[in-house]
Amino acid sequence: MDFPTVPVPDADAEHAARSRQDVLTKPRGALGRLEDLSIWVSACQGACPPRQFTRARIVVFAGDHGVAKAGVSAYPPEVTAQMVANIDAGGAAINVLAGNAGATVRVVDVAVDCDEPLSEQIGAYKVRRGSGDIAVEDAMTDEETLAAVTAGRRIADEEVDAGADLLIAGDMGIGNTTPSTALIAALAGKEPVALVGRGTGVDDAGWMRKTAAVRDALYRTRGHTADPLALLRICGGADLAAMAGFCAQAAIRRTPVLLDGVVVTAAALVAERLAPGAKQWWQAGHRSTEPAHDVALAQLGLVPVVDMGMRLGEGSGAAVALPLLRAAVAILSSMATFGEAAVSDRDDTDDRSAVIG
Amino acid sequence: MDFPTVPVPDADAEHAARSRQDVLTKPRGALGRLEDLSIWVSACQGACPPRQFTRARIVVFAGDHGVAKAGVSAYPPEVTAQMVANIDAGGAAINVLAGNAGATVRVVDVAVDCDEPLSEQIGAYKVRRGSGDIAVEDAMTDEETLAAVTAGRRIADEEVDAGADLLIAGDMGIGNTTPSTALIAALAGKEPVALVGRGTGVDDAGWMRKTAAVRDALYRTRGHTADPLALLRICGGADLAAMAGFCAQAAIRRTPVLLDGVVVTAAALVAERLAPGAKQWWQAGHRSTEPAHDVALAQLGLVPVVDMGMRLGEGSGAAVALPLLRAAVAILSSMATFGEAAVSDRDDTDDRSAVIG
Repeated sequence: MDFPTVPVPDADAEHAARSRQDVLTKPRGALGRLEDLSIWVSACQGACPPRQFTRARIVVFAGDHGVAKAGVSAYPPEVTAQMVANIDAGGAAINVLAGNAGATVRVVDVAVDCDEPLSEQIGAYKVRRGSGDIAVEDAMTDEETLAAVTAGRRIADEEVDAGADLLIAGDMGIGNTTPSTALIAALAGKEPVALVGRGTGVDDAGWMRKTAAVRDALYRTRGHTADPLALLRICGGADLAAMAGFCAQAAIRRTPVLLDGVVVTAAALVAERLAPGAKQWWQAGHRSTEPAHDVALAQLGLVPVVDMGMRLGEGSGAAVALPLLRAAVAILSSMATFGEAAVSDRDDTDDRSAVIG
Repeated sequence: MDFPTVPVPDADAEHAARSRQDVLTKPRGALGRLEDLSIWVSACQGACPPRQFTRARIVVFAGDHGVAKAGVSAYPPEVTAQMVANIDAGGAAINVLAGNAGATVRVVDVAVDCDEPLSEQIGAYKVRRGSGDIAVEDAMTDEETLAAVTAGRRIADEEVDAGADLLIAGDMGIGNTTPSTALIAALAGKEPVALVGRGTGVDDAGWMRKTAAVRDALYRTRGHTADPLALLRICGGADLAAMAGFCAQAAIRRTPVLLDGVVVTAAALVAERLAPGAKQWWQAGHRSTEPAHDVALAQLGLVPVVDMGMRLGEGSGAAVALPLLRAAVAILSSMATFGEAAVSDRDDTDDRSAVIG
């Protein structure tokens, strides 16, 4: 699969945004991370001041994982399909958090283990019925891997074509932190025992089964760690492959992305290998409690916007961070400058020396 | 000055909120801090589910400080009055951040060093024209201290009577991190050199002058550290006294407060001495870059919601955190339960032992 070269965010807009931050009626740098985020949005949009997001869109990628049957999660696998229905009905956390943040939600059944997709639309990109148990077999075939990555790319295209100006990927799938951790371990070259977390709340015995599953999956990745598609096939899953395609394609389409937790960030780590430079179009929404998440963020050089001790998935961490990104945009687009407000700036003719205080 | 006993947030509502979080369609605890915040709002409101805030109100307390003339700030003192006008005109950071968070802003001239308050309304509670230079003299008299604390209490009453269901105090005043640091040093028993920060961006020479001013002010607090009103008089200021009265009175009126940065938190630390237990009605909005802020938060046992490297004041850090508090309320009031959504919960009959995963 060939990805076009990822474009670079606009350097002129970035420079203009940085200059504009310095003439707004506040001490330079006093808004900290908000200033950085506003400059990044300007660069992504190629515009200063940036425009407020009018169609922030969350796409939840749902898929089951055979490894869940081995007892790596606190919840039974049928919850995946039930939660797809809950998201479709508007009752899940992501629906509530999206509403709070001015975003809308779409749920996609990539690989849920159910007889029929919930609707034709939700199942339009379905690749298979549950991914394989990575503890003992590949998650899927080469063809399915390509189909899943392509599905994610098409979904990103659909959303951007429909006007999305900010994209968030979310995940829903019992057991999905297991393949996510395996992907991160493979790409970061880390030992499973340092990366495996409690997911949605597995007990000690489950944690040991999960660690063993990641270790066994990693064993089969030997010789393939430089091939991101092979890694998705061996120790990923169709939902993760679709999310990787989605994150890469968003960058190709010059659309900023707020990453969520360990699952989406695992997919993003693969996406950066598929389409180098894509990470310039992403910010990390939050820091989850999963140990592997920190490792993946460090690999991407991303620093989370918020740290709320969350571990839910669905895009929830990104949705919680979205109002802060909106605040950053609003600052740069709406605050008065020193000149407009007739406020005295510090005297910078001899800054850092004779200035009073 | 007598404060009535501070009421305790509603334990029944708190219990109901905690129980409800456990039946929402998500793993228990998976929303981390959002769950804690939602439970706190329920307890403050005495209602489960809690109501979304309909009148979140930010009051910016403006005041000058004689110590600014000694060169403890990167900005000249006239900026205080200019920024009051900028806030009144809607061009300051707090206006933009309030709009983003669904809050409104009021600015009050408590002790700005200007000939006339910007308007009768803004100057209705004016105590004096600038507070004294705490490096060499008391910030104000006993009478002015009482007048300023009373002003803050009356303003809180006005806002609650007008329907405010969440209050935020903000600060505006060149030089105001100097008395704030002195108050925190006095109440926490810390050395100035460990607490003094760069404020809005003072240089090395200014930092040394600031540290000396805090040290000299602290010297005069000997024998008075158990008397919060005396501390406000000696090393605080009229704006800080008003903010202390405001934070205490909000608690007395059972109204939750999001604290801002080092200045508001210094005032809150005094308020907790004036009205013990008031801190149960407060959350820390953000962590600022000022070293004294962490010390004050630790004294109050509060953990900031966000950490964005901000150091602006005006209530900006609290305003940035407000959407997260709204998210917490929305989760508890709007998410579906396992029963409503027909989603399988984890099997807790033998949780942590035989459960699958």
